[in-house]
Amino acid sequence: MTTVRIEASRAYDVTIAPGLLGRAGALLRPLTQAKRAALVCGDRVGPLYAGTLQGALEQSGFAVSLKVIPHGEAYKTLETCGEILAFLSRNAFTRGDLVVALGGGVTGDLAGFAAAVYQRGCGLVQVPTTLLAAVDASVGGKTAVDLPEGKNQIGCFCQPLAVLCDTDAFSTLDARELRCGLAECAKIGLLFDRDFFFALPALARERRYEEIVARCVAYKRDLVEKDEFDRGERRLLNLGHSFGHALEQASRWQIPHGEAVAAGMAMIARAAAARGLCADGELDAILALLAALSLPTETDYSADELLAALEKDKKREGDTLTLVVPRAVGRCELLSVPLAEAAGWLRDGGAR
Amino acid sequence: MTTVRIEASRAYDVTIAPGLLGRAGALLRPLTQAKRAALVCGDRVGPLYAGTLQGALEQSGFAVSLKVIPHGEAYKTLETCGEILAFLSRNAFTRGDLVVALGGGVTGDLAGFAAAVYQRGCGLVQVPTTLLAAVDASVGGKTAVDLPEGKNQIGCFCQPLAVLCDTDAFSTLDARELRCGLAECAKIGLLFDRDFFFALPALARERRYEEIVARCVAYKRDLVEKDEFDRGERRLLNLGHSFGHALEQASRWQIPHGEAVAAGMAMIARAAAARGLCADGELDAILALLAALSLPTETDYSADELLAALEKDKKREGDTLTLVVPRAVGRCELLSVPLAEAAGWLRDGGAR
Repeated sequence: MTTVRIEASRAYDVTIAPGLLGRAGALLRPLTQAKRAALVCGDRVGPLYAGTLQGALEQSGFAVSLKVIPHGEAYKTLETCGEILAFLSRNAFTRGDLVVALGGGVTGDLAGFAAAVYQRGCGLVQVPTTLLAAVDASVGGKTAVDLPEGKNQIGCFCQPLAVLCDTDAFSTLDARELRCGLAECAKIGLLFDRDFFFALPALARERRYEEIVARCVAYKRDLVEKDEFDRGERRLLNLGHSFGHALEQASRWQIPHGEAVAAGMAMIARAAAARGLCADGELDAILALLAALSLPTETDYSADELLAALEKDKKREGDTLTLVVPRAVGRCELLSVPLAEAAGWLRDGGAR
Repeated sequence: MTTVRIEASRAYDVTIAPGLLGRAGALLRPLTQAKRAALVCGDRVGPLYAGTLQGALEQSGFAVSLKVIPHGEAYKTLETCGEILAFLSRNAFTRGDLVVALGGGVTGDLAGFAAAVYQRGCGLVQVPTTLLAAVDASVGGKTAVDLPEGKNQIGCFCQPLAVLCDTDAFSTLDARELRCGLAECAKIGLLFDRDFFFALPALARERRYEEIVARCVAYKRDLVEKDEFDRGERRLLNLGHSFGHALEQASRWQIPHGEAVAAGMAMIARAAAARGLCADGELDAILALLAALSLPTETDYSADELLAALEKDKKREGDTLTLVVPRAVGRCELLSVPLAEAAGWLRDGGAR
């Protein structure tokens, strides 16, 4: 069992281990006075893991109410959020009670936002069941809902009481879902840790998930503690995300987040190399590693198609975009770019 | 012109004066780098004041986009909030831009919530046009949206960049709207200031609104600075609100907020006197003052009808309600009451 302590505006532990679902009640009981827990999960995760988690919570004295939501990014809407909120209100949950988000990033973002705004904030526990959510969405307190106009346009910061990552849950992920998680792990390596970056394919092959998640969460912790509200250094975590979100949006969410981030990293690395900001050998190493993880490095979209989505980017400030640019594997920089130059960056990155 | 500085997690000024709408741009320009302002107002306030405010903002270099929403508590919904958020996204607002909430409490709560969650928080300016919003909703950073299941069930804390209260706007309030504002002023007097409480009818008759608002905001400031997130002393501001919200809810929002709070104060004072917590002479003085302001002091609802709404109260913690109980005019106390005793309090307060 690995524990990473995060000292944000609210301090909490990220606990990573196999078999954690069955011990969730015992781990949470000392942290809260809550009598009740709303267990929110998607309709694919529910049949797999909700029973074990519910049983463990009930054994530790939580009265559990189960709220199942439809699976997938298409349901990360204000409407689904309203259904969760109505469920909490109808069942007379108070702000001393808990919302437990069981699932991938969509569930964590959505149930997290509902918890953040229900009665101006009730308790939240994140229980990620995907590698992607474990290393990304479940840690750091960002919550989000999409608008038809753009991804994650709605949200707020809400640090959880705890994050419980049961690595056994990854056994039911298919190869594509695992790859998507590894894309975010590759991002952490590309940002901060050359050795980890190049070790990833072997670590993944050997299913050393506790190590992988712990390493990624520790780097994320450092940024969250320095810049909880994402105005400075934390924005490094957007590596691959400006172009990645644009790809997701242009594909109407047909390209999954991890693959979009992988392609986004490849594109920004390619553009950085084209502009002399990153050595060609480093670019080659980045593309090779992504390929070794079976992740995409190319796009069929045109610069114009991606530009429309970029203009909606939260990271835009007035007429400026903040890009995260690789200088070498393990070292990236924030760079302010005029929106007018974005099309050039996209083309250098490989967009038509 | 009166300025009350509020040192919350974000420090800001509440500025109170006649003719402030026309000077809004000049007052806001030094506070923000925003290029754009979304002016959100109801369809009754819009024709009266949006033009003046928009002109003033444009004169100081803000590009203004106007979003008009339907008037009234019935529209303080997640759906209307979604429309404001989609408007911001469609018009490519960034989190460096401003949302300016022009209107009464509903607009301030709703537009405030939208600003708080748009891209995880953009700039917010409150421009209250009612006495009620000026002394209550616009100050202190609470934002809210209703659910069919209960009032203000959704929300978060978001301190504005500034509050601009133009007392000239009160000239278009009808007698009932003014009375509703005076109910919240009476609440402040009953909580903290015996002299102010008894002076209110004369101050109102002489339309000394700048004085009235400044006094109420100063008391509210003291509580917000001590307890921004409403876990302790700030809850005193709920005086009259537990029973008041129940009345609003039971009437399906036909009883306006101010009248409900007045009746709620009368009821809790009556119950306090019945239980020997408040002298009969004090109760008589409270009822007489509310009557002098033409505010209601009675209810036709039964305890059972009100109890259903009380169970949804955000101030409930598990099986306990925190009531604000008058001990004398100018002195009130928080009191934890088991939910099982709530019906008795309601009956002592005058409910059937």
